[in-house]
Amino acid sequence: MTRYQHLACLLSERIEQGLYRSGERLPSVRTLSLEHGVSISTVQQAYHLLEEKQLIVPQPRSGYFVAPRKAAPPMPALTRPVQRPVEVTQWGSVLDLLSSRISGDVLQLGSGIPNLAQPTLKPLWKIQSRMAQKQDANLLSYDSLLGVAALREQIARLAIDSGCQLTPDDIVITTGCHEALSASLRAVCEPGDIIAVESPSFHGTMQTLRGLGIRAIEIPTDSVSGISLEALELAFEQWPIKAVLVVPNCNNPLGFIMPEPRKRALLALVQRFDAAIIEDDVYGELAWDYPRPITIKSLDMDGRVLLCSSFSKTLAPGLRVGWVAPGRYYDRVLHMKYINTGSTATLPQHAVADFIRQGHYLPHLRRMRQLYQRNYETFSCWVRHYFPCGICVSRPQGGFLMWIELPEAFDAVRLNNELRESQIQVAVGSLFSASGKYRNCLRLNYGLPVNPQTEQAIAKLGAAVERAMLACHAAVKTETILPE
Amino acid sequence: MTRYQHLACLLSERIEQGLYRSGERLPSVRTLSLEHGVSISTVQQAYHLLEEKQLIVPQPRSGYFVAPRKAAPPMPALTRPVQRPVEVTQWGSVLDLLSSRISGDVLQLGSGIPNLAQPTLKPLWKIQSRMAQKQDANLLSYDSLLGVAALREQIARLAIDSGCQLTPDDIVITTGCHEALSASLRAVCEPGDIIAVESPSFHGTMQTLRGLGIRAIEIPTDSVSGISLEALELAFEQWPIKAVLVVPNCNNPLGFIMPEPRKRALLALVQRFDAAIIEDDVYGELAWDYPRPITIKSLDMDGRVLLCSSFSKTLAPGLRVGWVAPGRYYDRVLHMKYINTGSTATLPQHAVADFIRQGHYLPHLRRMRQLYQRNYETFSCWVRHYFPCGICVSRPQGGFLMWIELPEAFDAVRLNNELRESQIQVAVGSLFSASGKYRNCLRLNYGLPVNPQTEQAIAKLGAAVERAMLACHAAVKTETILPE
Repeated sequence: MTRYQHLACLLSERIEQGLYRSGERLPSVRTLSLEHGVSISTVQQAYHLLEEKQLIVPQPRSGYFVAPRKAAPPMPALTRPVQRPVEVTQWGSVLDLLSSRISGDVLQLGSGIPNLAQPTLKPLWKIQSRMAQKQDANLLSYDSLLGVAALREQIARLAIDSGCQLTPDDIVITTGCHEALSASLRAVCEPGDIIAVESPSFHGTMQTLRGLGIRAIEIPTDSVSGISLEALELAFEQWPIKAVLVVPNCNNPLGFIMPEPRKRALLALVQRFDAAIIEDDVYGELAWDYPRPITIKSLDMDGRVLLCSSFSKTLAPGLRVGWVAPGRYYDRVLHMKYINTGSTATLPQHAVADFIRQGHYLPHLRRMRQLYQRNYETFSCWVRHYFPCGICVSRPQGGFLMWIELPEAFDAVRLNNELRESQIQVAVGSLFSASGKYRNCLRLNYGLPVNPQTEQAIAKLGAAVERAMLACHAAVKTETILPE
Repeated sequence: MTRYQHLACLLSERIEQGLYRSGERLPSVRTLSLEHGVSISTVQQAYHLLEEKQLIVPQPRSGYFVAPRKAAPPMPALTRPVQRPVEVTQWGSVLDLLSSRISGDVLQLGSGIPNLAQPTLKPLWKIQSRMAQKQDANLLSYDSLLGVAALREQIARLAIDSGCQLTPDDIVITTGCHEALSASLRAVCEPGDIIAVESPSFHGTMQTLRGLGIRAIEIPTDSVSGISLEALELAFEQWPIKAVLVVPNCNNPLGFIMPEPRKRALLALVQRFDAAIIEDDVYGELAWDYPRPITIKSLDMDGRVLLCSSFSKTLAPGLRVGWVAPGRYYDRVLHMKYINTGSTATLPQHAVADFIRQGHYLPHLRRMRQLYQRNYETFSCWVRHYFPCGICVSRPQGGFLMWIELPEAFDAVRLNNELRESQIQVAVGSLFSASGKYRNCLRLNYGLPVNPQTEQAIAKLGAAVERAMLACHAAVKTETILPE
């Protein structure tokens, strides 16, 4: 990105954030030049660029003004999924996504992998190395089925930040959040049962529903306030829903944090219909604001919330260390965890416990939150710069995932096929729906390193999106002309 | 154990192995004294001990002779489980077994944990430590859903020894054999389906059946030749059996290796009824004879065998590195593995791959086989010495597990309760049956270190068994007297 492009990005960011409102006059060229320490011509180029993008309009002798409607790419509207329980499909596409995950040369713009190149992770390596040097045979053996006690203690301590009063005995360690979720689902449901989910919803969970023969009813979800309680209530009235599965904090993929009153209302609603809540909090510690948002579990008085989480997004997914606080479903979850994998690997549990106990975890979290927040700004600049108009972009409040909605006729699956040549892949929106909706959406990971390679990939992606959108328009036109 | 007790053990071992046959004259006191470099009185004491145990009889002026019938504790007879599909119970007892696993002070005589204190494991620690020192971020990330390619290559190479032609692409890495089995079961069965299992059968698998709502039909199993093909055929004729789950090599808990012709016959039978075989080979590399026994998978031409294994028994269970070669069920197994846990932990996979590639695995296996075989001799001496008469003991051909059958009226669950005070626990036989049979049996782990502490534990166990058996007899007597 050149200097003037960067300035243009900054300005459009400010416009989006409402610092410059629609119709407002922008600072003069000279003011900006002084403010940013750049030449007059750089500012002029930046303003020209924004003008080209129809974000600002020049008015003779008065300077530049924010364009009336083009100020910010809007956020995705409330989703409108199918209003009945369906069996989950899309396994083939998920497999595609996963298969390309490590074919080395492919840049995964859509993965759910955190940034793993931070110095605050170094103590984790040191701890593991020291453990290996000690050659303690206990670390090679099974530990408790519940998980290493020292780790459960640390998790209980950390849970206080989310408003939860947990004891180590309330917690079962799992092989990643994945196992926490699958054991919870199995604990609560039988095959054929119905689960309500946010729409869009994490593809891993969706595939677990599919594998367990559980049907999903997708509930309209707002990219600011989360699952629609009104729609959920209607669904409860119509269908025998066993549980609601939500990611209320730094939602995957929409990035919202459900406001606390809505969390309370959701719990009350679920209580009224005597169902369970499976709460996936795996991104909760990555919320940008401090203190971190509370979990629904923290409001739960009768043990109907199964809180699932892991260190996969905050530390490292390769450790496969997750956990669940299953409330009243404790016994069944423990049984399901046992039949899945037996005990969880021993050494990584001790490593994570020591990492937290030695005080490395909170500083690491702080660093990651700041990194992701900064990255988000850069990535959204890039998206605005390289993507065509007419898109909606989510505004996450934490985590490292961004959801982009393209016009209805757009096909992200076809886009991914085209991108294969350029060694780029995104996460296709249809993975996030039981019924293959959201083919016009895609998920980006802005936790990726901010460097020319990533920028180039976003540029290529933007160009491909633009080409595809033009092709769409052409096709739509042809269709409207041809039929009669 | 004193010197004379040790000699007595050796002699009874020889008697059992048929070196001295029933009615045959034993070596003179002088000969034995010279042969073993012990005093005359030590030999005399040993002979007295064997005489007390009614293993030998003295004949005036002729020396000692092997007693007509008491030569060896017999092996367990063909088992007689319930002849219809049942739902698996016993989760409570399994949980008890698992909970006491790490309550530090309790000596687990019945666990399935290998001996982890061998020097041939040292390179594994070094490899892990070196990996941690390198700080390669890839090791913190997810690897392929299929598992680390380098590890799959090594497994394919090792599989040649069991007669299998596998490519790395035939293999899916799992979180222990536990996940391999549960993903296989899920790939082949729906809830409500029927699976045929050996009886007795590994409790982990049984609990997986329970958790998945699969019914088990327990097939009579012989402690030498394995599952009864005749009974299995009958079962196939009566019930819609989806798959047969067997541990044909170094069976858990009976220790047999199914003879090759019977393996062929089993496969042919299963083919005839178009079912699948889930083959658990987790102890197969620990067979005492070289070359190791073949797997049924190696005979399989149409992909109906799902071969499950892991490094939990040969290397270390705490690594949680297992694998499955699912044949024609590959796609479904992969899906089930994904919904269970996502990818398997990355670093341990690389560590195991390097351990094998650097040539440490086969020497380690050799050492472990020798260790377990030697241990078995010592443990069976101890059992013969400290246990009362009237028991049956399995004669394993590999692995580190021994099955002891006590008289029908015996209650091993009650025994375990009594042993709790002495900080000893055994694996109760009823865990190994869907319907809670084999309460009169127990499983011992002879991979435990041979030291005075272990010997003392076996002695305490033997004494407790003896007390319980006497109580049984008394109760039986009382019952026979009281009713009328």
